[in-house]
Amino acid sequence: MTRVRVDLNISLDGRATTVDQTPDDPFGQDWGRLTEAYVATRTFRERVLHDTSGAGTTDLDDEFAARYFQGIGAEILGAGMFGLHAHPDDPEWRGWWGDEPPFRVPVFVLTHERRPSLEMAGGTTFHFVTASPEEALAMATEVAGGGDVRVGGGATTVRSFLAAGLVDDLHVAIAPIILGQGVNLWDDLRGLERDCRIETVVAPSGTIHVTFTRERR
Amino acid sequence: MTRVRVDLNISLDGRATTVDQTPDDPFGQDWGRLTEAYVATRTFRERVLHDTSGAGTTDLDDEFAARYFQGIGAEILGAGMFGLHAHPDDPEWRGWWGDEPPFRVPVFVLTHERRPSLEMAGGTTFHFVTASPEEALAMATEVAGGGDVRVGGGATTVRSFLAAGLVDDLHVAIAPIILGQGVNLWDDLRGLERDCRIETVVAPSGTIHVTFTRERR
Repeated sequence: MTRVRVDLNISLDGRATTVDQTPDDPFGQDWGRLTEAYVATRTFRERVLHDTSGAGTTDLDDEFAARYFQGIGAEILGAGMFGLHAHPDDPEWRGWWGDEPPFRVPVFVLTHERRPSLEMAGGTTFHFVTASPEEALAMATEVAGGGDVRVGGGATTVRSFLAAGLVDDLHVAIAPIILGQGVNLWDDLRGLERDCRIETVVAPSGTIHVTFTRERR
Repeated sequence: MTRVRVDLNISLDGRATTVDQTPDDPFGQDWGRLTEAYVATRTFRERVLHDTSGAGTTDLDDEFAARYFQGIGAEILGAGMFGLHAHPDDPEWRGWWGDEPPFRVPVFVLTHERRPSLEMAGGTTFHFVTASPEEALAMATEVAGGGDVRVGGGATTVRSFLAAGLVDDLHVAIAPIILGQGVNLWDDLRGLERDCRIETVVAPSGTIHVTFTRERR
């Protein structure tokens, strides 16, 4: 049975987005600190940067990073995560990930913009759809071939799926820093742990990996 | 050199207080869930409940609980934590902890109410003072005999000491639950981790113990 999975990098105070981006530093310093341990993994280097040298960490952070992609049959992204907010009305924009994105499955991008589907190298096809979380999930499940559906982000999109009770497996990689600004993942999600088994492990990087596994639906 | 220490029970979303108290349930269900692992420790049972049967957990949760009291020469509490908000203008009120409170050192209670000092059994004396965090800390340090000063709570008092940069050792025992309401410990404390070594360990209860240890002042 298809499970709906989420992985997010957050700070100890729950911040899943950062607000210190500038034209000269389009990701910002905070984003680098929030994702530092993930970006350092061998999986990220191979899968996202196409670095096949074998460089990168291979401990617990990497085990979680590798799992992000295992058994996923379709992905759902918000418009902002795909880059439509940063690149409005640009028909040439094809996402942040180059010609061969790391997804390698159908990706549904939630947007009110009408755009033709984009078939990329490596098995990724971006479909642009106007849909509620439930509708997007039905579409993604249908093409996932029995695999799981990953809600890849951004934080606001993930929160809409969490609030709707649609997520079976939530993994947060908590960087032990206090950002004090940005979207708080946990806001208005009282009782999220209900029906879940919760496990926590700590990586050598200091990253605190917490998983919520829904045991009944 | 005296260090200023804090230990708090918080939820995964940072909540350090709960708001579901009722006349019939003066602590509330959430408080029980937030402090469940601490209350189950042998240290809590011995030191707070005077249960000398040896009952209680003795693993990592208990190691942290035992450390709460080790090397402490004086304590600082907010008025609410002592119970002055729940028992206003009651000269008979002597705190929540019975005749022999667990502190066993001088305790400075921050309040605008003028009250005579209360000498309790076992070495605890409550002093009621109107003071800023810095002033209270100076008073506590002076009587601590070279021991550390613990800021025992509540959350708002702890936050005022954290915001003033006065805390050297912060330990949070994070219950893996999302409360969604109550005081958020982390609000407006961006960069709290600066100059700190941060370590995380997970107890068998699922409690996530994070310590911030300031390495230079």
